[in-house]
Amino acid sequence: MEDCLFCKIINGDIPSERVYEDEFVYAFKDIDPVAPVHVLIIPKEHIASANDITAENSLVISKVFEAAAIIAKEAGIDANGYRIVNNCGELAGQTVKHLHFHLIGGRDLSWPPG
Amino acid sequence: MEDCLFCKIINGDIPSERVYEDEFVYAFKDIDPVAPVHVLIIPKEHIASANDITAENSLVISKVFEAAAIIAKEAGIDANGYRIVNNCGELAGQTVKHLHFHLIGGRDLSWPPG
Repeated sequence: MEDCLFCKIINGDIPSERVYEDEFVYAFKDIDPVAPVHVLIIPKEHIASANDITAENSLVISKVFEAAAIIAKEAGIDANGYRIVNNCGELAGQTVKHLHFHLIGGRDLSWPPG
Repeated sequence: MEDCLFCKIINGDIPSERVYEDEFVYAFKDIDPVAPVHVLIIPKEHIASANDITAENSLVISKVFEAAAIIAKEAGIDANGYRIVNNCGELAGQTVKHLHFHLIGGRDLSWPPG
């Protein structure tokens, strides 16, 4: 998508602190972290939001979560724990219309989650 | 898993308010909701946590998110938005050791998510 911030990050047109990449997934440090570890994991395919996940495009979601387990282990937060969050739409505060998952860890995470 | 609460819910040994079910996924109302809509979506296969997602078992995660989009639409929260949350391990407050995703909506959701 020409005007998508995250597509531009994937393409390298906008710089990011990459922490993981494979055929399906790109992951980078959130520029406004809310915890010691805060990584955004995104499918390379442009999917606007969780509302747009269907049987036709859902395979990348599996790949996102395979990546999350790897990233959490590499960041050393797998044993103590972490939270994975997807915001869909306005009430949840989704700011970029390219599906993304927040991997958040390195501190106690309270409940409810917002 | 013989002693798993969520496996017992899937099997019907423990009652739950089912909102969705297919070959791979079971979803039911959280008994301690934190928002007007609060559904737990779980893979029928016993996976302990997000740490345990691998290329061998990850397909069910795609199915969980296909189900989430359907459930959100049926609940009428797809247009305004919702949050999907997975807690992994102690710091995130994972209480049941069967991978589960919280689908939360129907109100404003603040940031950070815990």
